[in-house]
Amino acid sequence: MQPKEILKEHVSKTITLTDEQFDYFFSHFTYKTFKKGQTIIGEGDKVDCEYFVLSGYLKSFFINDDMKMFILQFAMPTWWASDYNALYSGERATVNVDCITDAEVLCLTSQDREKLCREIHEGEHFFRWRTNKGYVATQKRLLSFMNNDAKHRYEELLAQYPTLYNIVPKQLIASYLGVSRETLSRLYHS
Amino acid sequence: MQPKEILKEHVSKTITLTDEQFDYFFSHFTYKTFKKGQTIIGEGDKVDCEYFVLSGYLKSFFINDDMKMFILQFAMPTWWASDYNALYSGERATVNVDCITDAEVLCLTSQDREKLCREIHEGEHFFRWRTNKGYVATQKRLLSFMNNDAKHRYEELLAQYPTLYNIVPKQLIASYLGVSRETLSRLYHS
Repeated sequence: MQPKEILKEHVSKTITLTDEQFDYFFSHFTYKTFKKGQTIIGEGDKVDCEYFVLSGYLKSFFINDDMKMFILQFAMPTWWASDYNALYSGERATVNVDCITDAEVLCLTSQDREKLCREIHEGEHFFRWRTNKGYVATQKRLLSFMNNDAKHRYEELLAQYPTLYNIVPKQLIASYLGVSRETLSRLYHS
Repeated sequence: MQPKEILKEHVSKTITLTDEQFDYFFSHFTYKTFKKGQTIIGEGDKVDCEYFVLSGYLKSFFINDDMKMFILQFAMPTWWASDYNALYSGERATVNVDCITDAEVLCLTSQDREKLCREIHEGEHFFRWRTNKGYVATQKRLLSFMNNDAKHRYEELLAQYPTLYNIVPKQLIASYLGVSRETLSRLYHS
């Protein structure tokens, strides 16, 4: 599928736009490709864009004072990624986004998102529901983190993203779960 | 201040409505009072409403299979509370909401929220930005939970809500931080 069709199919799950409206909506996105390992957002960057994944896998993560990495989210095709705190507040990035694999994305600037939301009421509806879902998913991840042991979180992750284990390096899965590589290995073989 | 004025001041931070529009917006909210300890949403409930706090303190929490309580959020005046997963998905509540103190709230049903968002474009804008902020706050809480030790989280909590310590029982603060009452006591006296 072409980028335009992928975005259209995604958006159509929430709202109905005429072809003319969707052409206009789509005209605000910029197509970009990134190589495996490439940084899209680095800590300290000014963040102007959010990224809709067409192909490939991204991760958003942060690194603490002890240089330990924490993975906030994996992003796969039709998911969105950015440092939303930085994007919404205008503060510098505290979260990094980079590429686990080669990736194609569509970028949307904050200015254009707000313009689309103003000009197309349905567009505002789309972005409201996208964030509603992100909010609930983050809340579930927090509850899961507070409540479950690592084995439980591991099983939840596999159930939610069955393909992830073949694509994403084990070290990153361990980081997502908040366990060591050794602990993950025990879970994996148990 | 009257309920209407409190909501108006809150909404005006994000959008501008005419007096007529705000009267209409406000007409969809229902005023309710609850007593200290009273349950607003119980696990397993059907969830139709979200609650804007006028006065008092609420908590949202869940209880795991071992009967351990995890506090997701405290809600104070001008904050919103609900089980948003249940509210948005139509599933039964997995989170409870109850009253730490006597409380006055304004209830808005999902049906009326969607109606207001359809009828008043600015209303949709308001609710989109409210969720954007909730999303970022939840993400920060997740990162803080993954990264920081309990002492750090305790200091963060006090910095964020300086009044909380005098109003909310220590047991609940311990539950919010994910530590035992004894650990909190050590943090408190250190």
